[in-house]
Amino acid sequence: MTELIGLLAGCCTTVSLVPQLRRIWRAKSAHDLSLAMFLVFGLGVMLWLLYGIGIGSIAVITTNSVSLVLVIAIYSLAVHYEHHGSTNHGSAGR
Amino acid sequence: MTELIGLLAGCCTTVSLVPQLRRIWRAKSAHDLSLAMFLVFGLGVMLWLLYGIGIGSIAVITTNSVSLVLVIAIYSLAVHYEHHGSTNHGSAGR
Repeated sequence: MTELIGLLAGCCTTVSLVPQLRRIWRAKSAHDLSLAMFLVFGLGVMLWLLYGIGIGSIAVITTNSVSLVLVIAIYSLAVHYEHHGSTNHGSAGR
Repeated sequence: MTELIGLLAGCCTTVSLVPQLRRIWRAKSAHDLSLAMFLVFGLGVMLWLLYGIGIGSIAVITTNSVSLVLVIAIYSLAVHYEHHGSTNHGSAGR
């Protein structure tokens, strides 16, 4: 039961990354996204994954594995559009 | 040691909410934020909190307690600016 709550929790927090990915994909721009913030978030997801392995929590492991894939996808697109986008807002600190 | 990794993970994923709060506060607008996504995220944080209590994880409990406060602050500001903001982009589905 507890593990089910964890998996449901993981679905909610992971799914909420999808609109971010879709928005960057559609806008072909990532100037709304804070890249510095996203790096910290990505580091956090990696550490949660380690923690999940450490405590043997299926919910924490599966959730953060999926999150990590999404974070890498968002980050890659964001960096791509910052460098090749049609608009040039500058990338420092965003 | 494992709990330390969890707390560090929690710091990263929680701290990454702060720029979002600051951005809405400064811009006095939340039209960059998907409110629907944020509701799902907030529900996820609440469920993580329940899960943390269930498995007795200090890292999961403390992290998601702080996150919940930040999520409520961001959501309250976002709703406030959607209704009282100087710009009117419409709030449906965002």
